[in-house]
Amino acid sequence: MSTPSTYADAHTPMIHSCWYIAGLVHEFSRELQQRFLLGKSVLMYLSTDGKPVLLQNRCAHRSFPLHHGRLEEDNVVCMYHGLKYNPQGACIHAPMIDRPAPHAKLHRYPTVVRGPLVWAWMGDPALANEAEIPATDWLADDGWVSGSGYVHVKANYVGLQENLLDLTHFSYLHAGNIGTPEWVNSPFEVTIEAKRVRVLRQLRNAPPPKIYAVAMGLTHRDKVHRVSDAWFQSPAMNVAYTHIEDVAAAADEKRKYHVNILHLITPETQHSMHYWAFISRDFALEDAGVSKWLTDSVMQAFNEDREALEWIDEMDTQEGRPAQVEASFSSDRGSLAMRKILQQLATSESA
Amino acid sequence: MSTPSTYADAHTPMIHSCWYIAGLVHEFSRELQQRFLLGKSVLMYLSTDGKPVLLQNRCAHRSFPLHHGRLEEDNVVCMYHGLKYNPQGACIHAPMIDRPAPHAKLHRYPTVVRGPLVWAWMGDPALANEAEIPATDWLADDGWVSGSGYVHVKANYVGLQENLLDLTHFSYLHAGNIGTPEWVNSPFEVTIEAKRVRVLRQLRNAPPPKIYAVAMGLTHRDKVHRVSDAWFQSPAMNVAYTHIEDVAAAADEKRKYHVNILHLITPETQHSMHYWAFISRDFALEDAGVSKWLTDSVMQAFNEDREALEWIDEMDTQEGRPAQVEASFSSDRGSLAMRKILQQLATSESA
Amino acid sequence: MSTPSTYADAHTPMIHSCWYIAGLVHEFSRELQQRFLLGKSVLMYLSTDGKPVLLQNRCAHRSFPLHHGRLEEDNVVCMYHGLKYNPQGACIHAPMIDRPAPHAKLHRYPTVVRGPLVWAWMGDPALANEAEIPATDWLADDGWVSGSGYVHVKANYVGLQENLLDLTHFSYLHAGNIGTPEWVNSPFEVTIEAKRVRVLRQLRNAPPPKIYAVAMGLTHRDKVHRVSDAWFQSPAMNVAYTHIEDVAAAADEKRKYHVNILHLITPETQHSMHYWAFISRDFALEDAGVSKWLTDSVMQAFNEDREALEWIDEMDTQEGRPAQVEASFSSDRGSLAMRKILQQLATSESA
Repeated sequence: MSTPSTYADAHTPMIHSCWYIAGLVHEFSRELQQRFLLGKSVLMYLSTDGKPVLLQNRCAHRSFPLHHGRLEEDNVVCMYHGLKYNPQGACIHAPMIDRPAPHAKLHRYPTVVRGPLVWAWMGDPALANEAEIPATDWLADDGWVSGSGYVHVKANYVGLQENLLDLTHFSYLHAGNIGTPEWVNSPFEVTIEAKRVRVLRQLRNAPPPKIYAVAMGLTHRDKVHRVSDAWFQSPAMNVAYTHIEDVAAAADEKRKYHVNILHLITPETQHSMHYWAFISRDFALEDAGVSKWLTDSVMQAFNEDREALEWIDEMDTQEGRPAQVEASFSSDRGSLAMRKILQQLATSESA
Repeated sequence: MSTPSTYADAHTPMIHSCWYIAGLVHEFSRELQQRFLLGKSVLMYLSTDGKPVLLQNRCAHRSFPLHHGRLEEDNVVCMYHGLKYNPQGACIHAPMIDRPAPHAKLHRYPTVVRGPLVWAWMGDPALANEAEIPATDWLADDGWVSGSGYVHVKANYVGLQENLLDLTHFSYLHAGNIGTPEWVNSPFEVTIEAKRVRVLRQLRNAPPPKIYAVAMGLTHRDKVHRVSDAWFQSPAMNVAYTHIEDVAAAADEKRKYHVNILHLITPETQHSMHYWAFISRDFALEDAGVSKWLTDSVMQAFNEDREALEWIDEMDTQEGRPAQVEASFSSDRGSLAMRKILQQLATSESA
Repeated sequence: MSTPSTYADAHTPMIHSCWYIAGLVHEFSRELQQRFLLGKSVLMYLSTDGKPVLLQNRCAHRSFPLHHGRLEEDNVVCMYHGLKYNPQGACIHAPMIDRPAPHAKLHRYPTVVRGPLVWAWMGDPALANEAEIPATDWLADDGWVSGSGYVHVKANYVGLQENLLDLTHFSYLHAGNIGTPEWVNSPFEVTIEAKRVRVLRQLRNAPPPKIYAVAMGLTHRDKVHRVSDAWFQSPAMNVAYTHIEDVAAAADEKRKYHVNILHLITPETQHSMHYWAFISRDFALEDAGVSKWLTDSVMQAFNEDREALEWIDEMDTQEGRPAQVEASFSSDRGSLAMRKILQQLATSESA
């Protein structure tokens, strides 16, 4: 199987018509901050009623970066010529004419808060549809507890989305953590929808990986069933619904353990990304030691991913695209389908 | 009012057919120095009779940078193969043929010294006309005293030229220094000539800005007349002829105070510039404290300008041109006229 | 004489159909190493039977840099998904399918070991012909002894090849070392072959340069004959066969002293190169002091070359190509012929 250019890669334009994470709720404050999202400088702050505001960070007059300005109640004042903008991006006062200036407008990014997440629509606001925000309801479910982390990655985001659908790399890049030797060629099924891709991988009667064995207290077991149900949900999100079944559990012992790993990806530039993750579980809910172990282990694996993706991106930047067509495998079927979707989205946006 | 692309911006090619400051007289010495002017590496030195010499800094043979060579009396010797050039740029000795080499010529930049300033013509030498050097005669006038400073700015020069014609930014960027709140919407007139633009701004019966109140000993006054007569003279120069009238002055007190701020701008590259300034006054001529106060205050304001311009240039470099057309105001009429002139000059040069 | 664009310069594409030095034998080891050759990331290691291996350093699957992988006997294992490659670049095991993957191939660079040198063919392997490797047989001759050194140069390689055919620069750039004033306009002959250029320069009855006077014990002589027979052999190599004749030698004294300076040049990127040198002599074979003196002196000269070439490359990068055509001299006849050959090779490769 080969990879023609119908599959998105590190050079494919970023996709704007999508809900992306702009940040976590607690990252927004009464301080003006700048963050790059999809190559654009975005101004972030919290309005007086506690709502996250996301505006174009470039004054409509002479491009002064507004995060160097001043917050006056809910409004932003540019420190170059004093233009004042409200949270909708309208210029409500231009000092040189001493009145509002309707022609000086900032782009306002529609935002939606879902639990700890601030979603932003990066495309044409007229197309923003909250119903397209993928579900993350377990984050607010009392039966689950979550830890989270952030990694800044100096690489294009397509490689990470691909990484998350081809979990065969666990056995090598994350050997001794989330990977075991048997995982690499365990049976899997791929389901391809119009805009989503699912890779369901199952391994029966094999030793549990260390990360789960320790978290679940199963280090004494040599055989468990393991399922990873990974979903590419959008350019911004992948969820891996994982569970371990302790097949040797006694009747009075816990048998099934669930871990959801939520991957939230926002391209920062063509060659860098924001990467937030939530690691949620439905067991040992009160056990801070398990929280720390799981989060630390997953973040260690993410740092291994970060390092690999940065090396690959650096190679691509130094050498350009590979001389020959990428060699792919059956295990890449899901990620190739995902890259095809990304390519179609990018192509239809540029049309 | 909007800004179509007929107005020069940070991406407009630099204009060569113009007299620019290559440096101040005291910066030239018997040491070979390199300075970038309009993207070109230029060799600077002082001949034995004390004249500034400006030559192409790239040996005509194999491009060795001549400032790494050696000065022998008035001539420059390349340290790669020993070619010797006179201050006119002629190769008067090529060791490998042991005679002069008329075909190995360095471009010589015509220079004119005016007081402390070394002007250089950066275009076709055949078009150099000293009569086009703008007047700065007050620098040599006994009735005036001047201080000066230099700022290196990592931003395109068009933004600075625009900054200097729209002084409404004083009230924000330089609040508490040269700006007062009333200044931003004071009455102004714009005069547009073929290659020059004047913005005359007057504010009557308003508190003086701190910079002038202190320098002129007017901190006890709450009302003065203030005039700023700013002239875009060329891509290389802007002068603000400023005066304060102490309307409450007694018959035996000084009534009018003049300050000329001379802005000398030489693009270094497309995204950086040399910026020299002379702050001249016709009062308190002997008072070193006033000299220091005025120069320090102006240079502080210039550093605020530098910072703002660099932030804007960085934004432009990271994001590209703004997505939407710039919003402009009546106060931008002078600077837009100036940018139109720059655009026309650039266009006619590339034709 | 002027230099039209038919002569290669720093912007000419690199030439691939050529044997280049990939490294010295002792630089290869059982550690996986990355080296850039002609802009490509190349993997270097030594097989268990002591043979240098040179492979594409980019996994055929998802471009992971293989030098971050692991060596297992003679094979390289990618640490991303575990693909295993043999020294021929064939994938002998792909864990996700648990069998070899004939479609996942690494480019293997043909290599040939000659004494201390590892030659690599950087073009189409089908065109590799060992017979085209230029002779360096004196390196293995008992009548000669050699020292060597390495310089990394941040400049395009064409300038160094030119430097090595126009030795008139000795009198300036290397004055007091390998250069004497008389050398710059000594008589010379140029021989131009299809793919090689020879510049034979002779200077009779002149003081010896310090580097040789000290090495040969001729500091008391004020007149020797000196010959430099410099050969451009290929884009990768230049040899200067030098000899000094002590014309005042008594009948029982040594009269002729030979020094071969072998220049081995491999472009690393368009604007950097690897530069190895061997300095060989047929006298004072056992004298470690002479070895040290000669090697140190030559390496000092090479560092002067490196500095000059980097300054020139930086100038070229900052300013672009020179505005006017390069001025050339009769002494450039050899190097211009060489640049014409390089241009023809580059042009025929791109066709």
